[in-house]
Amino acid sequence: MNLTEKNRTTVGIYGQQYTIIGTESTSHIREVASIVDAKMREIRSNNPSLDTSKLAVLTAVNTVNEYLKLKEQYELLIKNFNN
Amino acid sequence: MNLTEKNRTTVGIYGQQYTIIGTESTSHIREVASIVDAKMREIRSNNPSLDTSKLAVLTAVNTVNEYLKLKEQYELLIKNFNN
Repeated sequence: MNLTEKNRTTVGIYGQQYTIIGTESTSHIREVASIVDAKMREIRSNNPSLDTSKLAVLTAVNTVNEYLKLKEQYELLIKNFNN
Repeated sequence: MNLTEKNRTTVGIYGQQYTIIGTESTSHIREVASIVDAKMREIRSNNPSLDTSKLAVLTAVNTVNEYLKLKEQYELLIKNFNN
């Protein structure tokens, strides 16, 4: 998300307010925030002793992991598409 | 990442150690961790006053945002593939 662009959306994630500035629409930012919030609560339910910071790092780890898997599928699909 | 599976990998992210347990290979987990670490440092460089917890949440926000964009492209590609 580019922090120099126009839309300014305040969202609540895991009990904390964040103002996100970017080119994305407010509804998109709210969707992203609600996914992050839900993921943090899900990871928390499996690891109740984690503090917010570790919980957020593990949420990022989880999402990057899913991103890389999707990217692999995406590249495979492009490869098949071109053949 | 499934926390009940076999591989156990300890990685350093933003100066903190995390043990990730899952079905993914150690090299994959290390790649994921290094992406998260790099993202946190990148966001930090643009927002030096953020504490680790907010930094990690914004890293998760950033990653979910990229994931959703890729998912959109992926679904579009599948749609074109089927037509």
